[in-house]
Amino acid sequence: MSRERITLIGGTGDLGYGLAVRWAHAGVPIVIGSRDAGRARDAAERVKAAMPAGVSVEGCENAEAAAKSSIVVLSVPFPAQAGILQSIKGSLKNSILVDTTVPLAAIVGGRPTRLLGVWEGSAAEQARALAPPEVPVVAAFHNLSALALQDLAHPLDCDILICGDDAAAKERLFPLVKLIPGLRPVDAGPLEMARIVESITALLISINRRHKVSHAGLRITGLPA
Amino acid sequence: MSRERITLIGGTGDLGYGLAVRWAHAGVPIVIGSRDAGRARDAAERVKAAMPAGVSVEGCENAEAAAKSSIVVLSVPFPAQAGILQSIKGSLKNSILVDTTVPLAAIVGGRPTRLLGVWEGSAAEQARALAPPEVPVVAAFHNLSALALQDLAHPLDCDILICGDDAAAKERLFPLVKLIPGLRPVDAGPLEMARIVESITALLISINRRHKVSHAGLRITGLPA
Repeated sequence: MSRERITLIGGTGDLGYGLAVRWAHAGVPIVIGSRDAGRARDAAERVKAAMPAGVSVEGCENAEAAAKSSIVVLSVPFPAQAGILQSIKGSLKNSILVDTTVPLAAIVGGRPTRLLGVWEGSAAEQARALAPPEVPVVAAFHNLSALALQDLAHPLDCDILICGDDAAAKERLFPLVKLIPGLRPVDAGPLEMARIVESITALLISINRRHKVSHAGLRITGLPA
Repeated sequence: MSRERITLIGGTGDLGYGLAVRWAHAGVPIVIGSRDAGRARDAAERVKAAMPAGVSVEGCENAEAAAKSSIVVLSVPFPAQAGILQSIKGSLKNSILVDTTVPLAAIVGGRPTRLLGVWEGSAAEQARALAPPEVPVVAAFHNLSALALQDLAHPLDCDILICGDDAAAKERLFPLVKLIPGLRPVDAGPLEMARIVESITALLISINRRHKVSHAGLRITGLPA
């Protein structure tokens, strides 16, 4: 299968690992990156063990992982985002960087519906400021339940709101989103719209709590079929 | 029919008028408020002309309108919100105030996807700060297409995210939302969540523009039926 290879930086974390599981299951070659190469290899073995034979899943240190794919998904906790981006930016040439970061205060000790202020406006715009200027930055996958994603038996039901200033880069991501059953890509406009899309994660956590559920997602209505 | 009467402050504007049309069609007695009593009466006549006989729709000046109902919906442009709230607050006792305000820069001359900063965090929290303390404030109806709402032939397909700190007040609103076909009330948590819900309107405007549609809405998935 001649599909794009995808690297998941922070692929041992819940969201990155979940995306690895779903894309590997769809036949996409996957590279899992971690600060610890051993943990990355372990995670790759776990993904492979749950898949039909023949799916390419490897694990390595983040910067090495970033250099292996043209699509690099950054899925690390907000406090680690800037440092890890610095450590991989030399490996990003000819890649699209897909930022999934949500600046939730929970990650640094607040309540999970609290958002942190980011100087640039959003975590995605912070990624834009730190990544090499020639690397397109696209923001996506903020509003997915990472736990549902990891469980192939759990049906997904969520639109993926995609923000970015490079139309061609967004379009490269669309078919990759569609490879995961239950997800639909929706172009949400320029990268600055990530300010709102990132915050929706805090809203979904609030809704989860009120309704005693754990996988609230969202769909946009009124779009052409 | 022994239904709650609803007052729409700013009921001659697109959203207020649209809600008046839909609720009157469902048999709810309606009071349309405007700064200009004559315009309020005209709007009431227009609503009645489109309804079966026997539906109670009246129009009067805002403060008088606010005194007539136990549910008072504030649907005015953001720059008018504080002043109109001051003018009606003496008429609000025993009412629930439903704030629908979105602090869009478009209203004061910016691009429609730009949001204004509100000191209290959201327009709803500004309404909370200005309304009498004993009046519960609930935020809702931000993400609806006002034009679709006015056209009874246009099917609606949108969840109404309801934010507030008074659970009983939110529950009073739920059945009123359900009276409008195609809308579903979803408890989104405390009033401060209106910061996010208000901003989603700017996101939907961005999505409308990207997809060349005019009625994008949203649904929350993963909730119990």
